[in-house]
Amino acid sequence: MIKTILSGYASQFEEKLARAYHSGGTAYDVIYDACRYSLLLGGKRLRPFLLNSFYKLCGGCGDMSERFEIAIESIHTYSLIHDDLPCMDNDDMRRGKPSCHKQFGEEYALLAGDALLTAAFANAAASDSALGYNNIVRAISVLAECAGIDGMIGGQTVDLLFEEKKAGEATLELICRLKTGALIKAACTIGCILADADDEKIQAAALYAEKLGLAFQIVDDILDETGSAEKLGKPIHSDRDNDKSTFVSLLGIEKCRAEVERLTEEAKAALDLFGPDADPLKDLADLLCERDH
Amino acid sequence: MIKTILSGYASQFEEKLARAYHSGGTAYDVIYDACRYSLLLGGKRLRPFLLNSFYKLCGGCGDMSERFEIAIESIHTYSLIHDDLPCMDNDDMRRGKPSCHKQFGEEYALLAGDALLTAAFANAAASDSALGYNNIVRAISVLAECAGIDGMIGGQTVDLLFEEKKAGEATLELICRLKTGALIKAACTIGCILADADDEKIQAAALYAEKLGLAFQIVDDILDETGSAEKLGKPIHSDRDNDKSTFVSLLGIEKCRAEVERLTEEAKAALDLFGPDADPLKDLADLLCERDH
Repeated sequence: MIKTILSGYASQFEEKLARAYHSGGTAYDVIYDACRYSLLLGGKRLRPFLLNSFYKLCGGCGDMSERFEIAIESIHTYSLIHDDLPCMDNDDMRRGKPSCHKQFGEEYALLAGDALLTAAFANAAASDSALGYNNIVRAISVLAECAGIDGMIGGQTVDLLFEEKKAGEATLELICRLKTGALIKAACTIGCILADADDEKIQAAALYAEKLGLAFQIVDDILDETGSAEKLGKPIHSDRDNDKSTFVSLLGIEKCRAEVERLTEEAKAALDLFGPDADPLKDLADLLCERDH
Repeated sequence: MIKTILSGYASQFEEKLARAYHSGGTAYDVIYDACRYSLLLGGKRLRPFLLNSFYKLCGGCGDMSERFEIAIESIHTYSLIHDDLPCMDNDDMRRGKPSCHKQFGEEYALLAGDALLTAAFANAAASDSALGYNNIVRAISVLAECAGIDGMIGGQTVDLLFEEKKAGEATLELICRLKTGALIKAACTIGCILADADDEKIQAAALYAEKLGLAFQIVDDILDETGSAEKLGKPIHSDRDNDKSTFVSLLGIEKCRAEVERLTEEAKAALDLFGPDADPLKDLADLLCERDH
C-alpha cells in the first residue's frame, strides 16, 4: 500500500521537477539540461514525499508545499552531483547511468550543482504567500541550516576527514546525523511549519526523522554488504573495498539489523500523537527498514 | 571622500564577516576555516556596500540589512572559489594569495563554496523580522534569481561556452549582464526592497546597477590590458594570452574608455530622483570608472 502511494507520488513529482527546470531556450541551456538529467535519474523521492506527507498530516491544504518539495529534492540532487565529482568520491555512475560530470563535463556538473542549490531557494521563496510569509521565512531558515555547514555539508566534511582513518561509532553517528539525517529532518519539519503546526508536532516530526535517518543509513550499510549490485544500481562492497568504517564493520550484521528494528519502532512511536492519520508514515518506516535497494 | 566611506565600511564589514563564520569548535572546522580564509582575502566589498547604501538611501533604519550584506558577499565569494577550481579557470592565486583549493585542497574548496552559498540564504532568512517577512521573502527571491541559472550561473556558463570561440559584442554584454551584473543588480534592489521602497525607486536602483555593472566589466578589461599586475593582485594580459574576446579586443581602448564614461553618466543620472542624498553613490560610479585596480 505505502509502496503504491510512494511510487504514485514519485511519478507525479517527476513531472513537476521537469516543468520547474524547463528551459526557455537560452544560451546556457546546457545547465538546464544537466539539472534535469540529474533530477530525473530516478530515486525514491523520499524527502519531498516526507515534506508533503507531514504538510498534509498537519492539516495543510492543497499543494502549496510543492515549491519546497522541489527545493528539497533540488538540494538532495545537487549534493549527489558534487559528491560524484572527481575531487570527491569520483563516481562515474549514478543509478546505473553516467554521473553528471561524465555526461556533461566537470565544469558543467559543478555549475549544475550550484544552480540546483540556488534554485532550491528561488523555488522556496516563490511559495504561495497564503502559507504565511513568516512560515516561509522560517522554513527557508530550516532548509538552509540543515543543508549547510552545521548540517549536510558538515557531515560530508567529517566523512572526508575520516576517509583515511577508522571512525568509531560516535563519529559514524555524527556523519549520518549530519550528512543524510539533517535533510530528512528538514523535510519532515518544513512540512509541519508550512502547515502552521505547533511546536509539539514539529518536535515529533523531528524525532521521527532522526530515528528514520539513522535506520536508513544502517540499512544502506547492510545493503552494501549483502545487497545486489543490480538492484542497487551501484557497486556493492564499496565501503569494504575502500576500507571504510561502517555500522556493519563496527557492529556486525546481526546487531545492525536489531538496531534498525529498534530505531524503526521508535520512529513510529514518535508519531503516536498524530493518531491513525500517521499510519502511512509508520508504514513508510517499515518499508525503508525492509527494503532491498 | 567616497574612497574613505567605502574603506571605512569595508573594515567594519570584515569584522562582521569574521563573526558570522566563526566556528564553535566542531569536527568540521576546516570548512569554517576555508570560508573565512576566502571571505577575508580582501576585496572592495562593493556589493554589500551598495546594498547598505540603497537601504539607507530609501530610509531604512539601523543595520537591519546586515544579514543580507553578509549573504551577498558570501555568494560573491563562493563564486570566486568555484571559479578558481581546476575544472573551471584553474587559478592558483586570488588577490595575491593561494586560492582556496591551493590552500585547503580541492574537495574542501568545493564544499566551502557550497557552504557559503547555503549560508547566504541562512543569513538572509535570519534577518530582523522588523523588515517585514514579505520584504524578506521578496529579497531572498531576488537574491536566488540573480545568483541562479538565469543570472550569475548562466553568465558563467556562456563564458565557458565561448572560451574556445570568439564572442561578439552582444555575447560579451550578455555574459557581463549575467555573470557580474546580476549580483550587483541584486545588491542595489535588495537594499531598496528591505527599506520597503516603492517600485519607482527599485527600478532606478536596477538601472544604476545595470550601467555600473557594464562599466565595471569594461574597466576590468581595460585594466587587464593596461594595468599593473602588482596593483591588481593578479596577472595582466590573461585575456589576450587566452585569446579571449574582450570589450578591448572588440572595440579598442579608446572606444572602451568613451563607453565607460557614457555608462557612468547614465548610472549617475538614474539616481536623480533620490536628490542629493544619492551623491555618494554617484561618486562611487566615478570612482569605479577611474580606478586602477
